[in-house]
Amino acid sequence: MDPASDSLFARLKATCAEDWAAYVDHGFVRQLADGSLPDACFRHYLAQDYLFLMHFSRAYALAVFKSERLEDMRQAAATLDALLNSEMSLHVAYCARWGLDEGQMAAVPEAEQNMAYTRFVLERGLSGDLLDLLAALAPCVVGYGEIGARLIEAPAARLDGNPYKDWIEVYGGAEYQEVAQGAVDQLDRVARQRIGEDPAASGRWQSLCTTFRSATRLEIGFWDMGLNPPD
Amino acid sequence: MDPASDSLFARLKATCAEDWAAYVDHGFVRQLADGSLPDACFRHYLAQDYLFLMHFSRAYALAVFKSERLEDMRQAAATLDALLNSEMSLHVAYCARWGLDEGQMAAVPEAEQNMAYTRFVLERGLSGDLLDLLAALAPCVVGYGEIGARLIEAPAARLDGNPYKDWIEVYGGAEYQEVAQGAVDQLDRVARQRIGEDPAASGRWQSLCTTFRSATRLEIGFWDMGLNPPD
Amino acid sequence: MDPASDSLFARLKATCAEDWAAYVDHGFVRQLADGSLPDACFRHYLAQDYLFLMHFSRAYALAVFKSERLEDMRQAAATLDALLNSEMSLHVAYCARWGLDEGQMAAVPEAEQNMAYTRFVLERGLSGDLLDLLAALAPCVVGYGEIGARLIEAPAARLDGNPYKDWIEVYGGAEYQEVAQGAVDQLDRVARQRIGEDPAASGRWQSLCTTFRSATRLEIGFWDMGLNPPD
Amino acid sequence: MDPASDSLFARLKATCAEDWAAYVDHGFVRQLADGSLPDACFRHYLAQDYLFLMHFSRAYALAVFKSERLEDMRQAAATLDALLNSEMSLHVAYCARWGLDEGQMAAVPEAEQNMAYTRFVLERGLSGDLLDLLAALAPCVVGYGEIGARLIEAPAARLDGNPYKDWIEVYGGAEYQEVAQGAVDQLDRVARQRIGEDPAASGRWQSLCTTFRSATRLEIGFWDMGLNPPD
Repeated sequence: MDPASDSLFARLKATCAEDWAAYVDHGFVRQLADGSLPDACFRHYLAQDYLFLMHFSRAYALAVFKSERLEDMRQAAATLDALLNSEMSLHVAYCARWGLDEGQMAAVPEAEQNMAYTRFVLERGLSGDLLDLLAALAPCVVGYGEIGARLIEAPAARLDGNPYKDWIEVYGGAEYQEVAQGAVDQLDRVARQRIGEDPAASGRWQSLCTTFRSATRLEIGFWDMGLNPPD
Repeated sequence: MDPASDSLFARLKATCAEDWAAYVDHGFVRQLADGSLPDACFRHYLAQDYLFLMHFSRAYALAVFKSERLEDMRQAAATLDALLNSEMSLHVAYCARWGLDEGQMAAVPEAEQNMAYTRFVLERGLSGDLLDLLAALAPCVVGYGEIGARLIEAPAARLDGNPYKDWIEVYGGAEYQEVAQGAVDQLDRVARQRIGEDPAASGRWQSLCTTFRSATRLEIGFWDMGLNPPD
Repeated sequence: MDPASDSLFARLKATCAEDWAAYVDHGFVRQLADGSLPDACFRHYLAQDYLFLMHFSRAYALAVFKSERLEDMRQAAATLDALLNSEMSLHVAYCARWGLDEGQMAAVPEAEQNMAYTRFVLERGLSGDLLDLLAALAPCVVGYGEIGARLIEAPAARLDGNPYKDWIEVYGGAEYQEVAQGAVDQLDRVARQRIGEDPAASGRWQSLCTTFRSATRLEIGFWDMGLNPPD
Repeated sequence: MDPASDSLFARLKATCAEDWAAYVDHGFVRQLADGSLPDACFRHYLAQDYLFLMHFSRAYALAVFKSERLEDMRQAAATLDALLNSEMSLHVAYCARWGLDEGQMAAVPEAEQNMAYTRFVLERGLSGDLLDLLAALAPCVVGYGEIGARLIEAPAARLDGNPYKDWIEVYGGAEYQEVAQGAVDQLDRVARQRIGEDPAASGRWQSLCTTFRSATRLEIGFWDMGLNPPD
């Protein structure tokens, strides 16, 4: 996906281009793309992602609570429902194919990078307003869309026989691309509500950039974690 | 509905029996039952209830955020979804038949009793834990079930030609009775998680009773409000 | 006190001039000014104000939590300290002279108008950001300064022999006027941080006005409550 | 300091004895004790600790907000005041002697381990109740007391000429020992309020243990961070 260059998302991304590149073009992502990622890394990532999804669901619930308009409540509630009732179930089914059952995943100790990221997002949402929360969520939601789109557009050869083909097809697929675009649009809409037409000219621009960049760096930390499974 | 007498709900109710009776057997309820409630009162109630449902949806979103277990997250998210996506739509459709459109309702100034109740519940949930939040929500969720069951069991004559028949059938109907029972069960389950087998013997019993009684009194205030529509 | 007319506070006040007048020139205030307020009303007000101060202290604690800058944290913490450690003690000492002891006040049932106001402020602070919280706090903090200044500038005759002279001198006095001015300044400073130079041109102006007006109306409700002591 | 063995603190500590030992007897602590810690490590620790203190202040503000009793509000507010108005100033003065000025420290990027720890504590406090928050704060507040007491009781030889003598004397000193004991007592008092006489027999014992152990592990991560200053 390729958000309009004047979207708030695109402008935030441009303020931390180097970090963003390090996230979407991370070694973990490259090894997913060419299928060379060790099994143990992917399984470690999947197990931590299960815990991550629980906390991300909580973050969307928080977004419902923090919404001032019914439209925003409903969009956040739809994401919450998708996370809790489809994505987590799909995740569990998918993980089963990688030899991980739900009980195991729920019992895995939460990695520090996972805690750092999820708690940062939740706390940002609680101490700030809905816009701060959405800015903290965007690198994940929209970034996975960008990663998926990139990988799926890569030469088809890489998908054939790639053990991570399914993963790539989920995030690169039309359904997820729509979710990511919805998040871009909501960020613009809520920015208009909470600041006005030109967020970058406002007093809180630096604060939003810091939130967005922090979340991007925490995504990098999450991939780093994936590359370092426990023995 | 008639929760088991050793449920936490039944025990909380027993500590404020007089307030509870004043709520479930309020003049507003009696006039609903015999159809004598003035139109203006019911319309005032409906318009305020629209705003109430928005804040109650937010309270269930908060319950998702505050849950420690996936099971509790899912139950609260299901209620949130029901509120935002069916109950509010039904409410809007129902109100249309009483001459109220959604734009009007969203623009109605929130009555003080409405603010007192909804903000009390939300704030209790934020300052306390999930159990405090559920104790603040219970008088509404379970109380409407009790009121509905009472009215529907009253002589059928009262339903025939009663302009409030639909309202009574919703809350007295099997579907809503199940929702109310689900709330009773969740209160017990979360009490076991957060206190143990005997909540009434615990140090926070008084605090839970105060929360429950306050919410019950705020329900009384809500009916009082209904009987006093603005000119 | 008379905040600069281009302060955010003055601009918010101007958007709800009628409500503001009904608050600062309320019957309760007039009767305080000429000393005609019945004892029972003042005692009822004092007892509820004790509970109010506890929740207002909590709101300032929340402002510390929600601050992004050390300067804002320190200003809110200073107010919290003043409320918890001087104002509440002064209040208790003052109330003792009116025949109310602290145990009695802590045991008084919280009036609905009190709950509506305090929980509205706390919840607004939790669902919004620091600026929303400060906008909800301003009508109380700054309004009492305006009321005190008005009453103290009224003909001195009204103070002689007025049983409410002390109350008037506290809020009209230099020390409290400084507190009120500090709140006006902080509102401007945080608005620059969170919106920019022209809050009234921003997308959230309506939301801030609604918060400010709601709090003003809840102040009116608090005075109404004072005039209606329980039997 | 040596909390009574039946205090909640002592019981929580006993459930994660191995993690606790790894925290209070960490390499960083040993090198502080014998003065062998490299300057660069200590400066890195100090700069991160400045940011840590800001978020810990916010956590105590949250404890004020979440308190149900005036006594608890006042104890948390006193800690907040001590942190914001003495400890941070002392920290700044102390850091100046190590060549770090406040502007530098405020501009240092927050280390991931720092974010993980502070946001975990804040989020735990927001999603849980006051007891959950205090359980998340205890390993830091009380643990530093234990570390200080251990180091100060070590042979005096280690203090003479030890560049970290001041640090050891602060946390081992009578004043800090009292703060730590106050935290132990408050944990017991709030546990009685929120659970009852026997927290370990309650349904939430596992949840409290998990919170306490997670915070202990995050303290270990903080020391690890200290030993790995950026180049």
